[in-house]
Amino acid sequence: MLLDRVNGPADLKAMSLAELRQLAAEIRRFLIEQLSVTGGHFGPNLGVVELTLALHRVFDSPRDKIIWDVGHQAYVHKIITGRKERFPTLRQFGGLAGFPKRSESPHDAFGTGHASTSISAALGMAVARDLKGESHHVVAVIGDGAMTGGMALEALNHAGHLRKRLIVVLNDNEMSIAENVGAMANYLAKLRTDRTYAKMKNEVEHLLKRIPSIGGKVARTLERAKDSVKYFWVPGMLFEELGFTYFGPVDGHDLAALTTMLDRVKECPDPVLLHVVTQKGKGYGRAERAPDKLHSVTPFNPETGKAEKSSSSLAPSYTDVFGNAIVELAEQDPRIVAITAAMPGGTGLTKFAQRFPDRFFDVGIAEQHAATLSAGLAASGMRPVFAVYSTFLQRAYDQVIHDICIQNLPVVFAVDRAGLVGADGETHQGAFDVAYLRTVPNMTIMMPKDENELRQMLYTALQLPGPVAVRYPRGAARGVPLDKEWHTIPIGSWEVIRQGLSPVAVVAMGPMVALAEEAADRLAEEGVDPMIINARFVKPLDGDFLLRLAGEGWALVTVEETALAGGLGSAVLEWLAGHGLHGVPVRCLGLPDQFIPHGGRGELLRAVGLTAERVADAVKDVLRAGRVPRAAVHTLEGSDLRLGQGRR
Amino acid sequence: MLLDRVNGPADLKAMSLAELRQLAAEIRRFLIEQLSVTGGHFGPNLGVVELTLALHRVFDSPRDKIIWDVGHQAYVHKIITGRKERFPTLRQFGGLAGFPKRSESPHDAFGTGHASTSISAALGMAVARDLKGESHHVVAVIGDGAMTGGMALEALNHAGHLRKRLIVVLNDNEMSIAENVGAMANYLAKLRTDRTYAKMKNEVEHLLKRIPSIGGKVARTLERAKDSVKYFWVPGMLFEELGFTYFGPVDGHDLAALTTMLDRVKECPDPVLLHVVTQKGKGYGRAERAPDKLHSVTPFNPETGKAEKSSSSLAPSYTDVFGNAIVELAEQDPRIVAITAAMPGGTGLTKFAQRFPDRFFDVGIAEQHAATLSAGLAASGMRPVFAVYSTFLQRAYDQVIHDICIQNLPVVFAVDRAGLVGADGETHQGAFDVAYLRTVPNMTIMMPKDENELRQMLYTALQLPGPVAVRYPRGAARGVPLDKEWHTIPIGSWEVIRQGLSPVAVVAMGPMVALAEEAADRLAEEGVDPMIINARFVKPLDGDFLLRLAGEGWALVTVEETALAGGLGSAVLEWLAGHGLHGVPVRCLGLPDQFIPHGGRGELLRAVGLTAERVADAVKDVLRAGRVPRAAVHTLEGSDLRLGQGRR
Repeated sequence: MLLDRVNGPADLKAMSLAELRQLAAEIRRFLIEQLSVTGGHFGPNLGVVELTLALHRVFDSPRDKIIWDVGHQAYVHKIITGRKERFPTLRQFGGLAGFPKRSESPHDAFGTGHASTSISAALGMAVARDLKGESHHVVAVIGDGAMTGGMALEALNHAGHLRKRLIVVLNDNEMSIAENVGAMANYLAKLRTDRTYAKMKNEVEHLLKRIPSIGGKVARTLERAKDSVKYFWVPGMLFEELGFTYFGPVDGHDLAALTTMLDRVKECPDPVLLHVVTQKGKGYGRAERAPDKLHSVTPFNPETGKAEKSSSSLAPSYTDVFGNAIVELAEQDPRIVAITAAMPGGTGLTKFAQRFPDRFFDVGIAEQHAATLSAGLAASGMRPVFAVYSTFLQRAYDQVIHDICIQNLPVVFAVDRAGLVGADGETHQGAFDVAYLRTVPNMTIMMPKDENELRQMLYTALQLPGPVAVRYPRGAARGVPLDKEWHTIPIGSWEVIRQGLSPVAVVAMGPMVALAEEAADRLAEEGVDPMIINARFVKPLDGDFLLRLAGEGWALVTVEETALAGGLGSAVLEWLAGHGLHGVPVRCLGLPDQFIPHGGRGELLRAVGLTAERVADAVKDVLRAGRVPRAAVHTLEGSDLRLGQGRR
Repeated sequence: MLLDRVNGPADLKAMSLAELRQLAAEIRRFLIEQLSVTGGHFGPNLGVVELTLALHRVFDSPRDKIIWDVGHQAYVHKIITGRKERFPTLRQFGGLAGFPKRSESPHDAFGTGHASTSISAALGMAVARDLKGESHHVVAVIGDGAMTGGMALEALNHAGHLRKRLIVVLNDNEMSIAENVGAMANYLAKLRTDRTYAKMKNEVEHLLKRIPSIGGKVARTLERAKDSVKYFWVPGMLFEELGFTYFGPVDGHDLAALTTMLDRVKECPDPVLLHVVTQKGKGYGRAERAPDKLHSVTPFNPETGKAEKSSSSLAPSYTDVFGNAIVELAEQDPRIVAITAAMPGGTGLTKFAQRFPDRFFDVGIAEQHAATLSAGLAASGMRPVFAVYSTFLQRAYDQVIHDICIQNLPVVFAVDRAGLVGADGETHQGAFDVAYLRTVPNMTIMMPKDENELRQMLYTALQLPGPVAVRYPRGAARGVPLDKEWHTIPIGSWEVIRQGLSPVAVVAMGPMVALAEEAADRLAEEGVDPMIINARFVKPLDGDFLLRLAGEGWALVTVEETALAGGLGSAVLEWLAGHGLHGVPVRCLGLPDQFIPHGGRGELLRAVGLTAERVADAVKDVLRAGRVPRAAVHTLEGSDLRLGQGRR
């Protein structure tokens, strides 16, 4: 095995092209073997085997900086930079990360996870290099999908202006995770079919007809002129306009062509863009044929490509329940439209897209645009539902505030992957959305305890005249029966799940309700019997309920799978202080002030102390704090602010 | 006066072109008269007089939707849609807003304030129109500066793909607020000087030389071919590639040409982009010559163009103090670089740009890119300072989390306009940054009580190995003397401003420290003497101090000019609860859960109850709540999380 001899990029440099080709084949087998056991991002890595080998052969990492946009295609890079032995631990707690991480290897020049960041980071490094008088290369490897993200275009615009020495490798596989959408994708996909090019061609041809006939030679020259336009000018025109020198397209599975081209771009003193065409899933037939399905995989049988049967619950995922509910609701209400930023499958909108193609909008990797597009739709009387992962909504934060909440427009955010997501790690943990959305006026925030409640929350959200976030976790729901009828949930109302006899209430959100129930079962053995509350609204809180609890001298334990700073617990504390209710013992359980790494969700929950045992301990702790005297109820006089805000 | 006869767009339709020209002149006089008294956005509005008249003559608002990107250029639109009488109240509390607002007029189809949103909103409206079977027009008017914002490019990409009937008017004045930067600006500015075009031209010419000489007619035809390329193809190429039909450029001060062109684009069934060239400040010589200075004005003498002397303090602005400090620090540390997103003047970086042109980066209206560029710089050993307004940093929220804080990179955010900004209103009030930054791990957040502290905070921030936000308000500082020596402020330490004898401490942030002092002076007359604490760190808090206060039975009043939800008060409450310290009476004063409209800062502070009187009331209120028994100190056992996060 050649692969056994590769412990770092230096080992590639001595290899012949034939050996590199053999190595590529070995790496593909390695990926199939490993990922069929561990799961992980499959198609993207099979697609970049040759590109990664060529990059590490031509460049000199870690001196030269290679930045992998999104980063889920960095497995081959990890394999040949000394981490192949760790692949059995891929994406597991304490194991190899699924994305580049600066803390993992000096070869990981910049950590990624979200799309479209690489050119900005690379430009920063190129600027620093020049200021420090250093001479290494900086290479950003970015997919055609990520290239549609606004910040990638901002970075191109700035890089073209600064004219620093910088190499952008455009890995064009005609896909992001799903099929690419948008004019940029067309631009990259085209040549023969291109409308603009055709127009130019026609224009040239029209003019040619008006040239007096002068025989074969001119005709041939003008053919060459057209070819010249076609091959050297038009394909890179857009990038050339932005100040880049364009090279390509080059076959991303041809090691000889790749190394030749990379050697060439290495010599350029200005920003260059090398257009590399690759095939997602290359070398594994099933992944080539269904690249979206095999983009990211759970453990599977490498012979059949079928997923290994999971032993876990038969309950549907929250994502699927959302996907079905929105179709049902859209059947009844023609105003409902659905928006995704390049995640139709991940957000459960595939069925909607099939059923209502005219009311479905995949905008590409463009969360900012998705949010303001939704605002425009809502301002015109539609009922947009923007389905988006919690951490990707961070990309649209200003638009949430500026375009949606200030105008109090009825946009529904279906915030998927809220809470810990597990294997994807730091960049994907949905820890912050409660804090960053809760501070925004006019926003309503809900989270269901189970999938039936998710459906009713979606229905409720669609009745509201202002912005709403319905957040729900990744993975399997609880398997509860679904109501046949739709009904609205009173805004800001909490639900008592278990009445309890002890003077302590556990205020839990989302999946933490089940955890609280488990804790209560444990506590029952010790004769402690807390009330359990489903805090289905984080904003607004159930003020009447809190007032009653505080007035009656209850202690509180809040439990949430979100960052404690600014979360549900914080909202409860603010509410109590805002009503002069000091003296209520409150314990807040949630995510600590740290980024949570990759790992199994259960392991992570244990690591952060979100276990039934800890909830039980907290309950006993506040009880021990003593039944406090009936808290004094001072209501702060309201402010003078009567500003006509908020049309709700 | 023709202007007297204009009460709505319909009144323009009957006018002759000559009358429209006269009206344009009258509107310019009106703008100069009004804005010399009230202040406001000057240059941008003088630049769009004819464009606005032409739009309202050709289109039929409010049936047709006109969306003003950024919106500071919508004064002319307001004048001719029935709001001219309200101009004396412009940007004043309760008066006419400086930006379009849906609540102000049906002619304001979409509220704006931040850049680059209009195409997304317009596309949403165009989609809604088609789904509802309506037939009106949707027009987005966007500047060349705003066109460099990533979301505008995301929207172009999507609009070009959807091919809905949509009109984008590109108002090209070769400026955003400052001079435009970036390849897009060059693209728009060019033709004759264009490198790519020159390349094409050379290529064509090279080929032409190889064509056997065939006399004058072919030469002329080929000239025409070149011209055809030059005028009809190259200028719009980039937009054509993105699926738009390009028209222009057209002189934006030629009413006849504008109306003709707008009539033409109105007939297009697909997305069109009309390139209009205008001059910022048109018709007022001083504004034409210094368009950045007269972009936005305070009251001025229309004869001389000089600002009326403000009677307010002689203290420098926080922005200027920052601008000087960063220059001084950069003299000593060559690693310091400064980044702005198209606001070199507004953020106080003009001096830095002049002194260190190689270390200064204006990236255009591109906050996302600015943040990740900073991350790349920091990862390569530089000390980037990204100076940005609080509300514009919202645009880079994901990048702050994903690229900077997860990697714990030492990027300094100089967060200007933190707190209420006054006249710009809802879209510009810096209310949320404490909440949205505080929830992010690894972040340090400080705010100075005065300009001397701002300088030392900047110095301190630049010594830290991780991300820091130093936030400071708009406007005049306190006029305190400045230390000659630099020194670091211990991270997380608070400062006692006034010792006090009463068992209550006012924990105040930034300008609220002065307010607390004022409150203490009032209270002294009533024999109440609170401690006053300068909470110069919001994250981390001064835990030792809080522990001592809580242990000694002090009551607390927190005062901040930020949103209460997730703010300083919330952080204090979390800290107390996290340490089992219930029973400490705490009152939190800050911004309520509402968007704060435009108005004088003093008026707004009174409206939201941030006055010395209210602080004094809160102090008495918590004192009345009674000296509570020494709070029980339960320290929650720490979580098991030992995840190796955070290299600090």
